[in-house]
Amino acid sequence: MNDDEAAPPSSAPDRVPAFDPERFRVEGRAVVDWIADYWSAVERRPVLSSVAPGWVRSHLPSRAPEAPEPLADVLADADRVILPGLTHWQHPAFFGWFPASTCGPSILGELLAAGLGVQGMLWATSPACTELETLVLDWLRDLLGLPVRFASTGAGGGVIQDSASSGLLCALVAARERATDLRSNATGVDQDARPLVVYASVDAHSSVEKAAGIAGIGRQWLRRIPGAGGGMDPAALARAMDEDAGAGRRPCFVVATVGTTASGAVDPVPAIAAVAARHAAWLHVDAAWAGAAALCPEFRGPLLAGAEAADSWGFNPHKWLLVNFDCHALWVADRTALVRALSTKPDYLRNAASDAGGVIDYSDWQVPLGRRFRALKLWMTLRMLGAEALRARIRDHVTWAGEFAAMLRGDPRFELLAEPSLSLVCFALRSGDETSRDLLDRVNATGAACLSHARVAGRFALRLAIGGPLTERRHVEQVWRTLAALAGSA
Amino acid sequence: MNDDEAAPPSSAPDRVPAFDPERFRVEGRAVVDWIADYWSAVERRPVLSSVAPGWVRSHLPSRAPEAPEPLADVLADADRVILPGLTHWQHPAFFGWFPASTCGPSILGELLAAGLGVQGMLWATSPACTELETLVLDWLRDLLGLPVRFASTGAGGGVIQDSASSGLLCALVAARERATDLRSNATGVDQDARPLVVYASVDAHSSVEKAAGIAGIGRQWLRRIPGAGGGMDPAALARAMDEDAGAGRRPCFVVATVGTTASGAVDPVPAIAAVAARHAAWLHVDAAWAGAAALCPEFRGPLLAGAEAADSWGFNPHKWLLVNFDCHALWVADRTALVRALSTKPDYLRNAASDAGGVIDYSDWQVPLGRRFRALKLWMTLRMLGAEALRARIRDHVTWAGEFAAMLRGDPRFELLAEPSLSLVCFALRSGDETSRDLLDRVNATGAACLSHARVAGRFALRLAIGGPLTERRHVEQVWRTLAALAGSA
Repeated sequence: MNDDEAAPPSSAPDRVPAFDPERFRVEGRAVVDWIADYWSAVERRPVLSSVAPGWVRSHLPSRAPEAPEPLADVLADADRVILPGLTHWQHPAFFGWFPASTCGPSILGELLAAGLGVQGMLWATSPACTELETLVLDWLRDLLGLPVRFASTGAGGGVIQDSASSGLLCALVAARERATDLRSNATGVDQDARPLVVYASVDAHSSVEKAAGIAGIGRQWLRRIPGAGGGMDPAALARAMDEDAGAGRRPCFVVATVGTTASGAVDPVPAIAAVAARHAAWLHVDAAWAGAAALCPEFRGPLLAGAEAADSWGFNPHKWLLVNFDCHALWVADRTALVRALSTKPDYLRNAASDAGGVIDYSDWQVPLGRRFRALKLWMTLRMLGAEALRARIRDHVTWAGEFAAMLRGDPRFELLAEPSLSLVCFALRSGDETSRDLLDRVNATGAACLSHARVAGRFALRLAIGGPLTERRHVEQVWRTLAALAGSA
Repeated sequence: MNDDEAAPPSSAPDRVPAFDPERFRVEGRAVVDWIADYWSAVERRPVLSSVAPGWVRSHLPSRAPEAPEPLADVLADADRVILPGLTHWQHPAFFGWFPASTCGPSILGELLAAGLGVQGMLWATSPACTELETLVLDWLRDLLGLPVRFASTGAGGGVIQDSASSGLLCALVAARERATDLRSNATGVDQDARPLVVYASVDAHSSVEKAAGIAGIGRQWLRRIPGAGGGMDPAALARAMDEDAGAGRRPCFVVATVGTTASGAVDPVPAIAAVAARHAAWLHVDAAWAGAAALCPEFRGPLLAGAEAADSWGFNPHKWLLVNFDCHALWVADRTALVRALSTKPDYLRNAASDAGGVIDYSDWQVPLGRRFRALKLWMTLRMLGAEALRARIRDHVTWAGEFAAMLRGDPRFELLAEPSLSLVCFALRSGDETSRDLLDRVNATGAACLSHARVAGRFALRLAIGGPLTERRHVEQVWRTLAALAGSA
């Protein structure tokens, strides 16, 4: 933005226009092309960054510039300093953690949302921002085959949150309020006298513990229920809840995990739901990663079993459904439970539409007040790819994971630590944790692939999670060849 | 994305590529142009949407498509259904609530972040995502003149959160833990026996109440301290804190507001800090909107007074600094207090860099685990506009607010309900609340401007908040003419 650009009417030379449409066309095109070039060549980059702590910072100025700098300088720094400092989550050989997959239409959805710059805290502050979100989450509920109780056309509805952690925190606060007749919101939690208790499997996500801490329940009142056959043991859950209730404590929130982070194990939700129901506890289903596979009817059974008894159900389109982070989809069966726990309506936010009821003010469904127009990226992904292409991709990934597991089974040096769960394979070297850990370090050091690790069945597991937008069968075959070569005589 | 596009190697006809670089160039350019056209013409649109509840939804299909649809259809629907359903926050005559201002470079920063699609939960998962954020918040600390205790080069540091509400919740949880030696995180809050107490002025933001509810402290343990001369009365705060401490309760968190939502009033932070210090309570400064003005040395005095005694200090670049929502900047003086309260490190997230210390894992500074590369939009805004242009814009807005107030003062039908605070003017008709409310409805119904309202000094106030990226002096003059005409003989 140089001074020789056309200046706005009221301006002195230092009045740089915040938005100059003609300049935006040129610069926008340059960034679009830069991104297209990045994706075209990302496969040739090392997946994991190898910079040392402080490297990125030390290569950038220590103070902000007083005068405008051109986009070309920014993009040059992005090439020179930012790219070497990235772990490339969209690389076709990124198999670590879970994918944070994205796609062209979703990137354009983010661009559109940023370009419109609306803030949808209330229905009234941009009705389309709210109504498109409600609609698209109804679309998605239908695509996944989720129970109709989660539809906004009844008592339920969906909302986009930034992450499964935030969604779970909101569900926990709603549960806490339901268990205390809204007293804990008003007068606070009293964990000494009659503590509220939260239950999740030993393999549940760390966000359950974090939420218990934030919500004032305390991490020690999260009971970690052991597993049996890969998922939470409902009999152990029943014993824990009965014992708590018998001792005057208040079981209030049960998290069933559909696809654990470590190994993709699925809790037996119907049996868990039955136990939770006996104690009138809120049942939250965390399907953050695996939920996307419910798009395919053939995978749906174990993923959705028991969902009709859940009070809330969440998954991340930003993991395996090609929608840019951040996009967590949370559905609740009773939206008033969420609103009662989280609503604030100061005078300056009151408006005729809210007062009349019948509109959703999503600020009452989340921790923050303000919100971006995140529905656009989900809408554009669903429309521009179409449901059938999304299903086809998931099927491919599950097939390739099965093929990878078959290759492992055929090599006596390796063993599976769990049956593959959808597109996730957890495995190890038979020679022990140390060689497995060493193998992980060496495969990641090649730069040709990124895998992550977890504890599975007490062992150090290498984790291969397939789901990237550019990943093809050949990339899975290649990472197997690399692993087999590096394993040596282990 | 039609089937006649080049197919990827392993594909059947339904294998739509998630990202086709050449297609992305074409479609990206189309969206960039659509946004440029939108900004070129936004002034001719009604600022506030006038659609009825349900209108947007009823004009879109009730189910997701099975087959891909072209971008052109999406953009046609955006024109036909989305735009009429928007309140145009970037419209030059948008003067409601506070601005959610943005600019070309920030929009491109969002695009770049979406295009890279990295997830920075840990330093290791993309070092540049973390290091650029830390650096840019150090830049911003320096630009604002914030105390050096908030610099990451010492014991403090900054983090980008989605909103001031989330930042405040994190600060409250850290304060709660500090007050209880981490016991409330571990064993829960016990508000019956020795309650923790939170203090904020009667005009503090609704997020304080929301956070007190979420954190298990309870909304009733938020003491709303009355004001004196526009800000919180430190003597009243001292009485409340002394009384609580004397009764065995635990004062733990004080929020000082620098620029209230209703009228932009500034609490006397130094006096509040002295009271908070006597009780070893955490002092959080909420400068969500007004903080941006600290860029200009001449406005800095009252905004930063007492900041050197704050434990945390936050403001929103997404309000008045042209950075797209979401971008809340939160600084803490002691980053370990935040990390201790919010950290979880399950086995699958452990890595050599984190274990060695010396890197920041921002997931330990926030509620969510995952995070976007939001530093890019802040970096690009600061670099491509430059600090001097950002200051010039803020100075313009403050000048125009003063001019608007002068016009009001010259018209006997109107009165100011508070002295203008920076670029915010609160006013009313002398004839009373009813005519004031009616005037607001009528000016907003013209579509030519958007103002909002608040209670100020017990009266219904019209609020004019200047800060939009396209707003010029002529738009402020025009809204005054409209108001004067509509006020009639009121």
